[in-house]
Amino acid sequence: MAPEATTESITAFGVARSTVKGAPLSEEELRKTDAYMRASLYLCLGMLYLRQNPLLREPLRVEHLKARLLGHWGSDAGQLFTYIHFNRLIKKYDLDAIFVSGPGHGAPAVLSQAYLEGTYSEVYPDITEDVQGLQRFFKQFSFPGGIGSHATPETPGSLHEGGELGYSISHAFGSVFDHPNLITVCMVGDGEAETGPLATSWHSTKFLNPITDGAVIPVLHLNGYKINNPTVLARISHKELENLFLGYGWTPYFVEGSDLPSMHQAMAATLEHCVLEIRKYQQQARSTGKPFRPRWPMIVLRSPKGWTAPRQVDGHYLEGFWRAHQIPLADVATNPEHLKLLENWMKDYKPEQVFDKNGKLIPELAELPPKGNRRMSANPITNGGLVRKPLHLPDFRKYAISVKDGSAGAEDGPSMNNMAVWLRDVIAANMDNFRLFGPDETESNKLGEVYKAGKKVWMGDYFDEDEDGGNLAFAGRVMEILSEHTVEGWLEGYVLSGRHGVLNSYEPFIHIIDSMVNQHCKWIEKCLEVEWRSKVSSLNILLTATVWRQDHNGFTHQDPGFLDVVANKSPDVVRIYLPPDGNCLLSVMDHCLKSVNYVNVIVADKQNHLQFLDMDDAIAHCTKGLGIWEWASNDNDLEPDVIMASCGDVSTAEALAATALLREFLPAVKVRFVNVVDLFKLIAHEDHPHGLTDKEYTAIFTDDKPIIFNFHSYPWLVHRLTYKRPGSQNMHVRGYKEKGNIDTPLELAIRNQTDRFSLAMDAIDRMPSLHNKGSGTRERLLNMQIKAKTEAFENGIDPEAIRNWRWPYARQTGGGVTGAVSGLFSGGSGSGQKEFATSE
Amino acid sequence: MAPEATTESITAFGVARSTVKGAPLSEEELRKTDAYMRASLYLCLGMLYLRQNPLLREPLRVEHLKARLLGHWGSDAGQLFTYIHFNRLIKKYDLDAIFVSGPGHGAPAVLSQAYLEGTYSEVYPDITEDVQGLQRFFKQFSFPGGIGSHATPETPGSLHEGGELGYSISHAFGSVFDHPNLITVCMVGDGEAETGPLATSWHSTKFLNPITDGAVIPVLHLNGYKINNPTVLARISHKELENLFLGYGWTPYFVEGSDLPSMHQAMAATLEHCVLEIRKYQQQARSTGKPFRPRWPMIVLRSPKGWTAPRQVDGHYLEGFWRAHQIPLADVATNPEHLKLLENWMKDYKPEQVFDKNGKLIPELAELPPKGNRRMSANPITNGGLVRKPLHLPDFRKYAISVKDGSAGAEDGPSMNNMAVWLRDVIAANMDNFRLFGPDETESNKLGEVYKAGKKVWMGDYFDEDEDGGNLAFAGRVMEILSEHTVEGWLEGYVLSGRHGVLNSYEPFIHIIDSMVNQHCKWIEKCLEVEWRSKVSSLNILLTATVWRQDHNGFTHQDPGFLDVVANKSPDVVRIYLPPDGNCLLSVMDHCLKSVNYVNVIVADKQNHLQFLDMDDAIAHCTKGLGIWEWASNDNDLEPDVIMASCGDVSTAEALAATALLREFLPAVKVRFVNVVDLFKLIAHEDHPHGLTDKEYTAIFTDDKPIIFNFHSYPWLVHRLTYKRPGSQNMHVRGYKEKGNIDTPLELAIRNQTDRFSLAMDAIDRMPSLHNKGSGTRERLLNMQIKAKTEAFENGIDPEAIRNWRWPYARQTGGGVTGAVSGLFSGGSGSGQKEFATSE
Repeated sequence: MAPEATTESITAFGVARSTVKGAPLSEEELRKTDAYMRASLYLCLGMLYLRQNPLLREPLRVEHLKARLLGHWGSDAGQLFTYIHFNRLIKKYDLDAIFVSGPGHGAPAVLSQAYLEGTYSEVYPDITEDVQGLQRFFKQFSFPGGIGSHATPETPGSLHEGGELGYSISHAFGSVFDHPNLITVCMVGDGEAETGPLATSWHSTKFLNPITDGAVIPVLHLNGYKINNPTVLARISHKELENLFLGYGWTPYFVEGSDLPSMHQAMAATLEHCVLEIRKYQQQARSTGKPFRPRWPMIVLRSPKGWTAPRQVDGHYLEGFWRAHQIPLADVATNPEHLKLLENWMKDYKPEQVFDKNGKLIPELAELPPKGNRRMSANPITNGGLVRKPLHLPDFRKYAISVKDGSAGAEDGPSMNNMAVWLRDVIAANMDNFRLFGPDETESNKLGEVYKAGKKVWMGDYFDEDEDGGNLAFAGRVMEILSEHTVEGWLEGYVLSGRHGVLNSYEPFIHIIDSMVNQHCKWIEKCLEVEWRSKVSSLNILLTATVWRQDHNGFTHQDPGFLDVVANKSPDVVRIYLPPDGNCLLSVMDHCLKSVNYVNVIVADKQNHLQFLDMDDAIAHCTKGLGIWEWASNDNDLEPDVIMASCGDVSTAEALAATALLREFLPAVKVRFVNVVDLFKLIAHEDHPHGLTDKEYTAIFTDDKPIIFNFHSYPWLVHRLTYKRPGSQNMHVRGYKEKGNIDTPLELAIRNQTDRFSLAMDAIDRMPSLHNKGSGTRERLLNMQIKAKTEAFENGIDPEAIRNWRWPYARQTGGGVTGAVSGLFSGGSGSGQKEFATSE
Repeated sequence: MAPEATTESITAFGVARSTVKGAPLSEEELRKTDAYMRASLYLCLGMLYLRQNPLLREPLRVEHLKARLLGHWGSDAGQLFTYIHFNRLIKKYDLDAIFVSGPGHGAPAVLSQAYLEGTYSEVYPDITEDVQGLQRFFKQFSFPGGIGSHATPETPGSLHEGGELGYSISHAFGSVFDHPNLITVCMVGDGEAETGPLATSWHSTKFLNPITDGAVIPVLHLNGYKINNPTVLARISHKELENLFLGYGWTPYFVEGSDLPSMHQAMAATLEHCVLEIRKYQQQARSTGKPFRPRWPMIVLRSPKGWTAPRQVDGHYLEGFWRAHQIPLADVATNPEHLKLLENWMKDYKPEQVFDKNGKLIPELAELPPKGNRRMSANPITNGGLVRKPLHLPDFRKYAISVKDGSAGAEDGPSMNNMAVWLRDVIAANMDNFRLFGPDETESNKLGEVYKAGKKVWMGDYFDEDEDGGNLAFAGRVMEILSEHTVEGWLEGYVLSGRHGVLNSYEPFIHIIDSMVNQHCKWIEKCLEVEWRSKVSSLNILLTATVWRQDHNGFTHQDPGFLDVVANKSPDVVRIYLPPDGNCLLSVMDHCLKSVNYVNVIVADKQNHLQFLDMDDAIAHCTKGLGIWEWASNDNDLEPDVIMASCGDVSTAEALAATALLREFLPAVKVRFVNVVDLFKLIAHEDHPHGLTDKEYTAIFTDDKPIIFNFHSYPWLVHRLTYKRPGSQNMHVRGYKEKGNIDTPLELAIRNQTDRFSLAMDAIDRMPSLHNKGSGTRERLLNMQIKAKTEAFENGIDPEAIRNWRWPYARQTGGGVTGAVSGLFSGGSGSGQKEFATSE
């Protein structure tokens, strides 16, 4: 027995019920609006069903239908209803506006508008405004070689695809930050509203400044149903729903019903009220210079799912039920009655009244939408590359960390703190089109210097304590909320609408937004195929607090696998950099901020680490993307016995320490040291534009020598990138392997065999030419490793000789070794030794 | 100039302000509660700072401190305050309760309770209840070889680690589903509350049945600050906050302040009120048999961050500010004044009053908490394996899809629909400890049959339409909300508290919970090292609506990369299965539901596909994990010329079709066909318990023949798994490579070169022995490919010969080929042919 319907249930049917009263539309306007909506709805159904006979000038026959009926009807009517009503206000108030279509598979709604506004024919000249064009327009929808059922990059006016749900509000806010005159109308599906990312993104108002930023009008579309379930928000009481949005800090206005004439008046009045409220708040803040947090207006639009479809078919509910989600009448090709039903339904929209004999929208309706760039389908902000201005970048070379000739690896340096100084000046030089984003980690990530150029935006309440280093401001340049989804969504929206930014995050938790980054990669990859799309800034993700330095955070904070996710994406749009030191970090960041249409991932730990390259060398190294470090090698460019390679800052220091051990203990062994900054240099040239040719690759790695590769991330990624390479069987990779706990850095490395001792032993094991010559050394290394680990375990901190290890060879001396180091190393061959490296 | 403090700001300081009035504690109870809290707080500070001198019986000196001070103080006081007050109610009402610690790094709070309750010493006998034990207890915290600063698996009473934030509420709800007498007290950090997953998980009440399920008491801890920022919820008005939770469907009770005596009374009264309300609602529903959705009670606890620390140090705010987040006085080792300050602060808790001369908690305080399994630190539900009962599984062999001898690949079959029948009966046989979870996709994923055993839980309002196939019920077995985070969190909580479940999801959107699955893998991996932990059911993830059948969803829905994320986790806890057909799917599912302590990922498309193996063969094949399909091979167990291999259902059908083409066009070529079900069979034996030995591997794949491997996912994963294998240079893998759009299945495959024609051409290209013999065939295959694609492009649907392709060889005949197929294949060698395969 099914539970009883709840008495307080609110139906989506009937005459409009609305918070805002009034009937602003004249009879004439009402008639035209209704006709325009009918034209729109007709187009939606045409896209879903028709391959021929686009205006039904012949009786509808099966051969006019597409062979496969694919697409979604459910949210189309509510979305285009909102869109059309906002058009009136754009014209009346000369608004700069765009439309974000959140509900899944709602593309017919916005495609119909782009077509009716003429934009579609402008960007796709073969889709003309006539019968033939209409036919092509219909056929291409959800059709092989055509366009999708989301608001994909092919959709004029779209900067939000809506394939994966949850990001419409954060994208919308991203688009209006620093666009003070923009209003983004953001349609939110009530299915989408159940996702976590969407549920927290309502709090974005706490970060929106009414002086410097534009405004978002969310329209929560209480369509009532998802694929096969009712939605949560459509099945709670009116009071709960109202409280929820009041609690989120909005002023909700309700528009509910299905009766078209009254719904038109209610929506027209409500949207206009919202626009006027927005203008009032902005005016108040801008005229006084005093920003505040308005309780911004938003709309709850309750209309039936599949609105304007038949209410019932064959005794089953269609309109106002989940059956209207996708193709309403899926069996039209085999059910003549349903085919007739479809024909009658489409004809009810009276296409002959709204399209002229050539198939073009009649002039009185063509006059309704705004013109030119005021059309939401043609607003250049949605094609962000058009409005993008390159950044003013201070010369990063002036921010170099001093690394004197011959002193590579001689000193620790604050790579991240130092880069933050440059980043501060990037911010200062680009105060209206660059922001730094992060989930409450900017300070922890040693980037706090940026606050001197721009504080953290905070529109919430202020307490007295905030004066004590709070670094909060109504107008700032750093965006922080503890939601990776929200900051990533803001950044995506900001970049897609023509600006620049960087997201900084702890490495382990970037997996939270794997799927968002995947979707963004797909978006920009597809944009490359859309000729009228102009390239946007790259989305830059700076990963720090890396796996190797999670001293007390432990196992949960150890996951360097984001690189695997990114490496799966199209080589046309992804780049991964692991700068080994501070000057390389600067060079890489500068490069990334200049680039377009990529997702750049930069991995650099936030702690101080050894510095290796002066600025000129760093630039050369990063430009090459990888290279032999001659100062660390003793093969004199001749044939090495072993290649010690590294990628990542901590990994590089350990690989160098291993190299020093080998050179100290086995001076006859010729070691070549290779460092990789640009990970995709490793992959075959034909698989990624950055990939080396095999000739270039073997010139560095040889095709027959053992390679001990210490990698920042999971080791398999390097194998995956190099499996095609000559000599790939010699590639021996160490990296993180899910072995961790509460460890000192050395202990963690030992668990994963990425420590200096393990690496040196690996090298010995892989050099058959050593025969038994290496065995004594191997034992000695093992003893040193055990001793170091025991000490760390007892004291809770790595031995000083490990913590403060320095590269012991002067840069110029090549094979030489300083006396102190040599003395310490050779001081004992086992139990007697007290120290096994120097901190000098 | 900093913005002004807002007038309506609410401070966390002062005498308690609370919704519920009353002072239920006697003076005696108040005194004891206060003392117990002091003992707890003392332990927290001890864990953060001390390595020696645990009870400060000597003056505090630097050498008593840990070398590195790691840990967090911020949320400890508020959490243990809540915990202690709930203890009183457990005793008073004999409650079955557990505690979920949501705020990050709050472990000292719960560790202190486990120690004071004696549980800690029970599970770790070396951590005794005396001075020495206390010293070890302190030292091990955030110390190498010790325990972490989250409520890790080593923490008695924890089933929620809180390393990555956002899942406390969904875990808590998972723990109380089907545990009607359980109350889970769930502490939610106000930082955590900003995450998307947490923000939507408040809606979990719409899925909680007051008759069959227990209750959750969320305590939102308005601690005020994150690492370096205020929290959003602590900086909105009281009215907004109240509205928000009313809107979420809860009844919020506020407890706000810092004055301990009044806060004790307020919390005692409020928690008791909540318990009584819960009992009242449950009683009402259970006595009438009529479930409803209560507006369940929850608590907003506003207390200062770092509560009971000094308010200011050196003129900077500490208590009640973000500086109290981590180690409050980080420089005690070098700043004697701060060392003294720490000593005085710790002594203010009067350890000498609460611990006896042996270092044990004094008897009158030891009597305060509940005893035995009523202790939240010892509740067996938090060690789910203890209460887990194996499922009653119907014999899956009885649900076999009929595949007659000799008819492998002769018919399509409903693999997923069929498995759903078995799953229905699994549900029916386990009505109180098995649930199916999914984000609104169960019906779409062809699993709707399960509703016959258990409908979808829905505590929201009901409409009349719901009778028309809504499949909703107050008491059901299927859990659906459009939040992958929430359903995954529920499932994790459900499994960790001793029950069983399956999550079904579209493959592309499972990336949304990459990080959750990572964290769960880490949890169960670590549990293996904790001796007193009993193994819980595996977490089963069924991925369907796979990459190869996203006909109209397009590029955004194409991502098979979840397997890469899972494959990075510890081989001790992850398993990946790609059953090629319906009987294998049954066998795999049965295996997974019997297993413990894994994350099992099963990939199977929801559409009908070819069936290959009868049940006996399927069981044998799945048991081996991979194998040669002799019926598809013509190498007669001798030396093959090429190995055609596959993994995944769609991939297998294409690889078989390629095999058929090769056998048809090049009958002299000896083809061996290999199918892989258990992905980790490919990896080296030493790297995963399922991995084949090299000998086993080469017996199947050879070490010198070309392997054309058609893989479901990104191709590099196979390279990554097999790079160590003999003959790895011969492994040629095809898979998804981010090339997609709106495609028919064949078109998508052709883009990614995973179609039959590409695979057959690959094989020809890789067999040097063919010399030029294959060139004509290659050209012919290419022509066939182009023709098929052109037809698909024009009609929007694949040619029937592709859609309805069947394996053309009778099972027993080996090298033979049926006449009809042969005729069609040989009918033309290029432009003249009309068909190139048969649907017979």
